[in-house]
Amino acid sequence: MYSYVPPIDDYRFLLTHVLRFDEAMAEVCKDVDADLAITVLEEAGRLCADRLQPLNREGDEQGSRLVDGAVITPPGFADAYREFVAAGWPALAASPDHGGQGLPFILQLWLDEMLSATNLSFGLFPGLTRGAVEAIIAHASEDLKAAYLAPLVSGEWTGAMALTESGAGTDLALLKTKAVPLGDGRHAVTGQKIFISSGDHDFGGNIVHLVLARLPDAPPGVKGISLFLVPKFLPDADGGFTVRNSMSVGALEKKMGIHAQPTCVMNYDEATGWLVGEPHRGLAAMFTMMNAERLMVGIQGLGIAGAAYGQAASYAKERLQGRSADGTRNPVAIIEHADVRRMLLTIRAFVEAGRALAGWTALQLDRAHAHPDAAERAKADALVALLTPVVKAAFTDMGFESAVQAQQVFGGHGYIREWGMEQYVRDARIAQIYEGTNGVQAMDLVARKLPLSGGAVVEGFFDLIAADLDTTDMPIATRTREALSKLRDVTTSLRGASVDASGAAAVDYLRLFALVAMGWMWTRMAAAAQDDTPLHNAKQSVAAFFAQRMLPQADALAASIMAGETTLMALEADAF
Amino acid sequence: MYSYVPPIDDYRFLLTHVLRFDEAMAEVCKDVDADLAITVLEEAGRLCADRLQPLNREGDEQGSRLVDGAVITPPGFADAYREFVAAGWPALAASPDHGGQGLPFILQLWLDEMLSATNLSFGLFPGLTRGAVEAIIAHASEDLKAAYLAPLVSGEWTGAMALTESGAGTDLALLKTKAVPLGDGRHAVTGQKIFISSGDHDFGGNIVHLVLARLPDAPPGVKGISLFLVPKFLPDADGGFTVRNSMSVGALEKKMGIHAQPTCVMNYDEATGWLVGEPHRGLAAMFTMMNAERLMVGIQGLGIAGAAYGQAASYAKERLQGRSADGTRNPVAIIEHADVRRMLLTIRAFVEAGRALAGWTALQLDRAHAHPDAAERAKADALVALLTPVVKAAFTDMGFESAVQAQQVFGGHGYIREWGMEQYVRDARIAQIYEGTNGVQAMDLVARKLPLSGGAVVEGFFDLIAADLDTTDMPIATRTREALSKLRDVTTSLRGASVDASGAAAVDYLRLFALVAMGWMWTRMAAAAQDDTPLHNAKQSVAAFFAQRMLPQADALAASIMAGETTLMALEADAF
Repeated sequence: MYSYVPPIDDYRFLLTHVLRFDEAMAEVCKDVDADLAITVLEEAGRLCADRLQPLNREGDEQGSRLVDGAVITPPGFADAYREFVAAGWPALAASPDHGGQGLPFILQLWLDEMLSATNLSFGLFPGLTRGAVEAIIAHASEDLKAAYLAPLVSGEWTGAMALTESGAGTDLALLKTKAVPLGDGRHAVTGQKIFISSGDHDFGGNIVHLVLARLPDAPPGVKGISLFLVPKFLPDADGGFTVRNSMSVGALEKKMGIHAQPTCVMNYDEATGWLVGEPHRGLAAMFTMMNAERLMVGIQGLGIAGAAYGQAASYAKERLQGRSADGTRNPVAIIEHADVRRMLLTIRAFVEAGRALAGWTALQLDRAHAHPDAAERAKADALVALLTPVVKAAFTDMGFESAVQAQQVFGGHGYIREWGMEQYVRDARIAQIYEGTNGVQAMDLVARKLPLSGGAVVEGFFDLIAADLDTTDMPIATRTREALSKLRDVTTSLRGASVDASGAAAVDYLRLFALVAMGWMWTRMAAAAQDDTPLHNAKQSVAAFFAQRMLPQADALAASIMAGETTLMALEADAF
Repeated sequence: MYSYVPPIDDYRFLLTHVLRFDEAMAEVCKDVDADLAITVLEEAGRLCADRLQPLNREGDEQGSRLVDGAVITPPGFADAYREFVAAGWPALAASPDHGGQGLPFILQLWLDEMLSATNLSFGLFPGLTRGAVEAIIAHASEDLKAAYLAPLVSGEWTGAMALTESGAGTDLALLKTKAVPLGDGRHAVTGQKIFISSGDHDFGGNIVHLVLARLPDAPPGVKGISLFLVPKFLPDADGGFTVRNSMSVGALEKKMGIHAQPTCVMNYDEATGWLVGEPHRGLAAMFTMMNAERLMVGIQGLGIAGAAYGQAASYAKERLQGRSADGTRNPVAIIEHADVRRMLLTIRAFVEAGRALAGWTALQLDRAHAHPDAAERAKADALVALLTPVVKAAFTDMGFESAVQAQQVFGGHGYIREWGMEQYVRDARIAQIYEGTNGVQAMDLVARKLPLSGGAVVEGFFDLIAADLDTTDMPIATRTREALSKLRDVTTSLRGASVDASGAAAVDYLRLFALVAMGWMWTRMAAAAQDDTPLHNAKQSVAAFFAQRMLPQADALAASIMAGETTLMALEADAF
């Protein structure tokens, strides 16, 4: 049985050599240095490897079940969740103002990597709770904050986001759930929502749903959507939360993967709810949740890719099959075969660059929240906005592709359930879809993020990359410079593009953007890995692989982007 | 509920306009013209759409089960199989010498496309039987042929290939199953085999296993492997087959997909078997089966891609979500969104070119078997050998990618089981693995097929392509010419390459090869589609899409191929 090995050495290398953590946090989070950060990550890694990974296979086989209207999670999940809460993990990066530990967000993001690597279904519970916390902090009344925030921050209670309806997914303008004011600040919320992660469970504690619905006087479309806090248990006269709200789990969705995660069809039947934020401004509040979630979802792809890599590399070193290249030894471990190495290196080149890029983005998020200089905050905030769709979409696409490659290393055994490789594939697949499909992310990047500050944000990001590339003439830097030049060209060509032209280019554009950003991170890592140690030597090798075997995709992507929309739009709809 | 629409119009277009079926078959199979072929395909399409597709979802949910040592297939499978046999479909392309109908192999291959599109688990039963038939015809004694061939050809009995063991997959040299001669022509076969498709079922009739095993005097390695015919039921004194052989199903493999297909762990416990072919020459006999199967497996990827496309296109025309590009209409069918079109066209550009290329290859197979001129037979045979790994690997890789893209069109609904899109993904995945993983196919192409006749076979194929490209100056021809030029360059550079250099390049090389071959087929289709009809106009549109958006990948692939093996082999095995 494979045991997950947390990537602590890589975290340490990134914090100390690449991201210069202490320096980046100097004006932001003074109490934490790299040593403390590593200690926290080591502790988190032990929890994930020892407690959560062992539940993952069985969680997939058993799944969550709906029994007499209540969700029963797979064996061990409730106990593990209680331990997770008791150890304080949900509050890791939350503000001390709300009972959090106030640690940098990079620790949260890398904890999320390890959670996703070992048990994605489990990791969604605290993940969605954090989204709810963000929305409540940003938009809810003081009364709601006083009642709900502390137990959500601690993880004693959990959160759920109830947005999608069967006829309203990407396009929330079409949603039909109603909220009728009762005159005393309460609302009666009625409707059906689908795909509600963590909609119910057996962990104990309240479950706080944030539900998008329409007020009676709502204008049509997205400007008529409001956000409501709808808890499973309502406050009673004694200040406890014991009164069952009129909401119920209609069914559990039968899904391709994340079987342990109770993805609910939720029915609200005049359920009591309170408005969060302004009437008809629910979409803004929802995006507060979504943006926090999107970085986390990107990391899910990365986490699964890292775990799949570890398991495939371990198998490749043990599995004896075939002859050595010189013909003298037979059988040999399949790690000797060039094509097996190609598959593994393809995964690793993504995982390590992605880990670095996610870490860099997380540092910007902390700077955006807490830097003393307002201009620095704004600059960092814009960079996070720019990179969020890139991390979400590119990491989950490459995460899925990585899981598929890792499964391929196992040959026929990869298709058999017991090895767990096919579970990675099935679980990873959801991350390309939820929190906004990857196509939606790509349109967000091209149509909303590129125009930020008249293009100055993206140009500023490219300048940052260029400055780092110019510090070295290693091949990875040279190749990334070429790719960056192509990226700048296509960025210019997309300025002011029509909706169709943007849509035609968006997915390829986002992939090219991610490729350049990863090349940038490989350049920084290669430049920082100058010692003759196994880790530093491996960084040089994988950087060279990325330069030679992955960066050439930039040409193809640029050509595809420049092809424009005509070919796509020419065919009549009926001819599809 | 989506109903599968057999691609009859496309078959007709290909037979009459592109592949010039009547001309190609003139000296090979005189009794069949394009009209008759279409009639057969229409009949096959009805069977697949009306009888097999409706069993596919439930087959996935129920799966085959092992009850008291016997396999129970999902509801409806046994009846459907009996109908399939009664209608004569298993014998479609088999030789009349053995009770077959002697129709051209292209009809078999396109029947396989429709079987895979509607019910891959079902299609494997006749598919594996055909492999067994091929091996018996080519290698078995007259006695064995007399006893086993006719009921296998008719499909009354089925076949299974028992090759893999837990320690011997790609590398069959490691297999341990023993066969001890009993002195009367019979052998006692003992060992355990895994991943045995159609190893048992409840369709009635005998199940004829072709088992690889070692004779007592076998030399080690692949030169000590022999092939044995081991039937579930042995002949009795009255000429019936009623005596149960000592072989049993140890377990059904729990798999990612093809749940309806009973993939068995088989135990042979001094089971009675007969040698097929020469002692110690079992691998040659096995490759007779494998080569027939590999084209079929490639078609499985294509079939699923076509079905997934049809279902996704149908959904995209109905699903209302989002705003029209000009902002005036809301909601609109998502087929209006450029990125949805990009996904659909990517699938379609593969499916239609793949269907044409598979058809062309199938015609070569018939010419290889039945052309009166020996030189033509040899030429065609070499082309089939060259293209078999390309069809197997490229079509199954692109088939899987297509299923994933089609699932993405459905957003969150694609992740839910009831829509069936995630089943396409899970089912399609196996085709990249079995009958030799796609990495093995790529090595077969580079290390065994490129050197055929000192390189003359591949050069001859490139000349064929070049001659067709030179007949037109349409952009698809121009772009394909550029890609062919790159392919010729890298082919030259791989001549005499080391094992590691071949392995490092193989997968990318095969993909580039397939891209050029598909560009060639798009050129032929575009050149033939000169009328102002919906089908011809669509061919022009999709050809332009392929040229602009898919052929640019040739540059990236060529660069990756030229990168050589150094980067792959540099890292120590322990550093993975």
